Parts: sequence; C-alpha cells; structure tokens
Amino acid sequence: MTSKQPAQRLRKSPGQVRSAVHQAVIDLLSDPGGADLTIPAVAQRAGVNHTSIYRRWGGREALLADVVVTRLERDSPLADTGTLRGDLRAWAEAGVASIRTPEGRLLIRAVALSMPGSATAQGKRAQQFERRMAAIERIRDRATARGEVPPPLDQILDQLVAPLYLRALFGIEPPASGYPDLLVDRLLGSPDTPRPA
Amino acid sequence: MTSKQPAQRLRKSPGQVRSAVHQAVIDLLSDPGGADLTIPAVAQRAGVNHTSIYRRWGGREALLADVVVTRLERDSPLADTGTLRGDLRAWAEAGVASIRTPEGRLLIRAVALSMPGSATAQGKRAQQFERRMAAIERIRDRATARGEVPPPLDQILDQLVAPLYLRALFGIEPPASGYPDLLVDRLLGSPDTPRPA
Repeated sequence: MTSKQPAQRLRKSPGQVRSAVHQAVIDLLSDPGGADLTIPAVAQRAGVNHTSIYRRWGGREALLADVVVTRLERDSPLADTGTLRGDLRAWAEAGVASIRTPEGRLLIRAVALSMPGSATAQGKRAQQFERRMAAIERIRDRATARGEVPPPLDQILDQLVAPLYLRALFGIEPPASGYPDLLVDRLLGSPDTPRPA
Repeated sequence: MTSKQPAQRLRKSPGQVRSAVHQAVIDLLSDPGGADLTIPAVAQRAGVNHTSIYRRWGGREALLADVVVTRLERDSPLADTGTLRGDLRAWAEAGVASIRTPEGRLLIRAVALSMPGSATAQGKRAQQFERRMAAIERIRDRATARGEVPPPLDQILDQLVAPLYLRALFGIEPPASGYPDLLVDRLLGSPDTPRPA
C-alpha cells in the first residue's frame, strides 16, 4: 500500500494519533457538505499518514466502530441503580439524551455506516454489535446476581435498543417526555402489574 | 458540473437509464470489495453519464432512497387480509423474509446509508422515512375504515418496524420461527387477551 499523499507530521505518539484520528472521524461525519468518510480523507484531516490508520485499525469499519464505542462509553457511563428496572431506565435515558444531540445522532449513523457491507460478513457484523451490547449484558448479569430474572437479550434488543436506534437513524423525535419509562414498561410490564408473558 | 468521464452511451431512454442505474446501485452495494457508492461509480457501472444521475435524482441519498422504495414495493406488495392483525402480520412476515436474503439486508443497509448526513437535515430525513412508512399508514387507514382502532404510528414504529431494521442492520438473526407473530402480539396484545394499556 503506497502513499500518494505528501509525507505528513509522522512523529505523533500512538495516543496522539488515536485522538487526532477519532476527532477527524467526528469532524467528517459532522460536515454538512457530506464528504465521503474514507481513510485517506480521515488521514488528511488528522494529519497522519493513512498507512498508520490501516495498520492500526485495519479499515474504515473497524475505525468507525472504535470511535463509536469509545464516545458512547465516555458519554454514557453505566449507572448501577440497584434494580433491573432502574438500570434499564438509566440506559434508556442516556440513549434518549444521546439521540437528542447532533453528535449522538452522528454516532448512531456511524454505527450503521460501520457495519461490514458484504453479504457474507454476517458473523463479523454480529460480533461488532455484541461489543456495543456489552452494557446491556452487564445490566443483565447484575440483575441475575441479585436474584432478579432479566428478559432475554433478544427481547431487550427488540423493545428497548431497536426503537432508540431507529429514531436516531431516521431522525424521528422521541415523545417529548416519559419515553424511557414507556419503553422500559413495555419491556418489563408496568411497575404495578405483572410482566406480560 | 462538468464531466471528467469519457462520453458514454447517452442515448438510453429514461426508463433504460432508471433501470440501469438502479441495477448499478444494487451491484455496487453487493460488491464484497466494498467500493464506495459514489455517483461517478454508479454512472460508470450503469453506462450513463453522471450528470444524468445528478439531474434526475439530485444526489446519492435520493437515488438510494428511490432504489430502496422501488425494490421493497416490488418484492413485498401490501396484502389486504381484512383485519388489522392479519395485515400487520403479513407486513412483518414480508419484512422477516426480506432480511433473511442478502439483497434484503443490503436494502436496509442502503436505507441507513441514504439518510442525509447533516445534523441539520432532520426534517428531510424524517420526510424520507415517512415515504418508507406509507405501507404502514395504509394498513392503519384500512383498519380505521373498518372501524378498528389501530395503535398510533409511533408505537408501530417502536414495536414492529424498529426490531426488523435493527436486526437487518446488525446482522442479528430473528428467532427461527414465530417472530412475526411475536412482534404483532407484543403490539396488539395476544389474540386471546385484551391489548395492554
């Protein structure tokens, strides 16, 4: 892989490279001009050689996934409220807050863009999504350790995660208030009535 | 906008252009090599001048949206079963069948890619999604005309549309059987019990 770009400031530390590249991805995603998010474009904006990006991340999808997971973990640290309902509500509240910000919506969009495009890459894609779902798994594990019985992951995906992603992706505003509670109540049953079968 | 491409076969009829361009988009989306889906790449593959594409579709997002809506309407014509439950189940069954095929997953991915990237384009994005939701609106209208009371569109998005999109996008297999019914039962309540409040 030979570089056609002029040699650039190559003496960044690994941490500086990472941070400059992450910021370049966010900047490019935010650009209303809609420049294509390519590795050369990221490299140029970050002031690093694009071979460093290929070497470190392997490609665009892995880079995007790294940016997304890093930002979302930084912006939405996982609350430990002591109950399954509280933890899920906190997760949903962070999600709703996130999709109300431009950067949050960009990140969700980036998750979609970062999915491997090949029809045969299903396994790789699912694996990447599992990394994103680690927070939900930790909530389930804590509930089980407390003796609660959390819904299956599949059901949490369908009823809690999917609505937030869909709305972020398509720009559909969530209801003005009470939306996190609404989603959690649909999933667990309302607090005063037993969970639906 | 001046063309840097060599002059190509320009004498296609509008219908031929449309069909060649649509097929080129599908081909490029299907390419495991993952070439970026740019207008020049589509033009080259379709054998049309890229100025024709800009003139007709305006840009990549509108082109992708047109391809997706056209294919999905062709592949999943809307069934009129005579009941709200039957219509929603038929919609969900078509959706599940679609995400089990490589082309179906590509199309869902294309929907995500076709969303305008700009943070300020929320309105445009929502409008495009509404075009995709026309089938659901027709199902709701028919139910209302029969005297049934369909759930609000928002709730159908959350509980029926969102899970299918999420699974298509992230390559998460739906449960092997009964998934359309499961989603519809969550939305309407199971057939033997009243709908949850």
